Amino acid sequence: MSKLVIVGTVAFDAIETPFGKTDKILGGAATFIGLAASQFDVDGAIISVVGGDFPKEDITMLQDKGLDVSSIEIVEDGKTFYWKGKYHNDMNTRDTLATELNVLADFNPIVPENFKDAEVVMLGNLHPMVQLGVIEQMTKRPKLIILDTMNFWMDNALDDLLKVIEKIDVITINDEEARQLTGEYSLVMAAKKIMTMGPKFVVIKKGEHGALLFYDDEVFFAPALPLKEVFDPTGAGDTFAGGFAGYLAKTEDYSYENLKKAIIYGSALASFCVEKFGTERMLDLDKKEVYKRILQFKSLTQFDIELT
Amino acid sequence: MSKLVIVGTVAFDAIETPFGKTDKILGGAATFIGLAASQFDVDGAIISVVGGDFPKEDITMLQDKGLDVSSIEIVEDGKTFYWKGKYHNDMNTRDTLATELNVLADFNPIVPENFKDAEVVMLGNLHPMVQLGVIEQMTKRPKLIILDTMNFWMDNALDDLLKVIEKIDVITINDEEARQLTGEYSLVMAAKKIMTMGPKFVVIKKGEHGALLFYDDEVFFAPALPLKEVFDPTGAGDTFAGGFAGYLAKTEDYSYENLKKAIIYGSALASFCVEKFGTERMLDLDKKEVYKRILQFKSLTQFDIELT
Repeated sequence: MSKLVIVGTVAFDAIETPFGKTDKILGGAATFIGLAASQFDVDGAIISVVGGDFPKEDITMLQDKGLDVSSIEIVEDGKTFYWKGKYHNDMNTRDTLATELNVLADFNPIVPENFKDAEVVMLGNLHPMVQLGVIEQMTKRPKLIILDTMNFWMDNALDDLLKVIEKIDVITINDEEARQLTGEYSLVMAAKKIMTMGPKFVVIKKGEHGALLFYDDEVFFAPALPLKEVFDPTGAGDTFAGGFAGYLAKTEDYSYENLKKAIIYGSALASFCVEKFGTERMLDLDKKEVYKRILQFKSLTQFDIELT
Repeated sequence: MSKLVIVGTVAFDAIETPFGKTDKILGGAATFIGLAASQFDVDGAIISVVGGDFPKEDITMLQDKGLDVSSIEIVEDGKTFYWKGKYHNDMNTRDTLATELNVLADFNPIVPENFKDAEVVMLGNLHPMVQLGVIEQMTKRPKLIILDTMNFWMDNALDDLLKVIEKIDVITINDEEARQLTGEYSLVMAAKKIMTMGPKFVVIKKGEHGALLFYDDEVFFAPALPLKEVFDPTGAGDTFAGGFAGYLAKTEDYSYENLKKAIIYGSALASFCVEKFGTERMLDLDKKEVYKRILQFKSLTQFDIELT
């Protein structure tokens, strides 16, 4: 079992989908990543910041999942990061109705002393300088640094982003963002270009169309599970990343072969996340259900052709 | 080896893509289906109609591929069906610039006497009444009737289309068309609804995002091969259908397990089709290349997770 450092937002989301709407509920990249990774009983720490308005029982819940929460800073006179969004009917696009950075504006991440030698670092979507700050606190080079990011940082902090990308092993990014970052329409070409920027592995997330893992001249594909209904996509990408990182931290094998398995686990966990609002489905998820879903992924993709 | 009846257009296409443009070149659903099916050395017949302007050497070429061309009617004083289209930069959408039905307007398909007992019938995209006319000429119920269709017939001949759908075993349809036909956004729900209309198997084509095979409560997914560049998507869907039908006719096994393999073969053949303009790549394709690509599909999708 490797140690896993998770940095990202712990936040409030208010979500509207064709199926209903919520008030402020628990959300945030690090929350989803942590909940997914906790399925593997990892030795993980969440590094984040919340305001005095954040429910103590949500922090206790993360702790009960086996996560070190000592580096979730609580700014008592500050307010927690808040995002409000509305999904369109196709669930693939959404409008952001509100973003309040609040305490996140001055976030200064501190890696807990006993996690400075962690083997796996999962950098959730945040300002690239914050992500870089975490890498710089590590006392030895982690075996695997995974970065998630988004188009917002390409638009507003590209130079900083490129500095972080140079230092990581795996980037997870969606298809449109891969195209934006490289100017290449073909995802094969985009992935090749990103590999020259630093990462050995490129994971391109295509939402309901699955995810691609690129390494050298190899490519592996994990489909998204076709679902009767997608209730709320919020957090699916972070859950994917958390499942991916958690599986790797548990198995301590950072080979391409094992990364394939990790993206299947990530996809399986993400397929649960979208079944209910926010973190709801991830909170009551048990290992038996996860195993059953991995079997569904097998029957979805495995075939046996004898070549003559 | 089963007999395979193929009905569809044999036509001229003029194509413009970001990579270049062509004058009138060989195209048509039955052409692409036949070329793909011929990879399996099937005993196949093409039923179609062309005008006096159609090159005799193209018919000879199809014959050289082992296909019975006796039911490709030649209307000497008529003109061949012609389609002209232009693809947008993303290659996923296109504008139709011209459609001239010509001899297709009065097409009356005749199934050759020695193919009236064929085990597999592949109904390429055509007016549903023409497709129905082929089914009605069969002297015994084929073991597998596969139907390809498109939104045009849903808009203009829905009642006729529903009559054909009732009589078939497999429908191949794209994602938007599945949604239009059923009013269901979820492809899982759409497939379930289509199964109540007649077909036991529903294949939903998602272009560059692969294809789904639904049967009962089962679902199987074949990705499209990620390519460095897609040169010309024309005929990819027909090539997919032709590979699917050809593999099934060759193996004479119409089980769900074997249909899975058939959609992998269909996907593999379609991945060649898009590499060059029109039929060009399919004409010089050999079995070794196909086998190699099937291996690529294996490495793209196969994983081995041990569940504890």
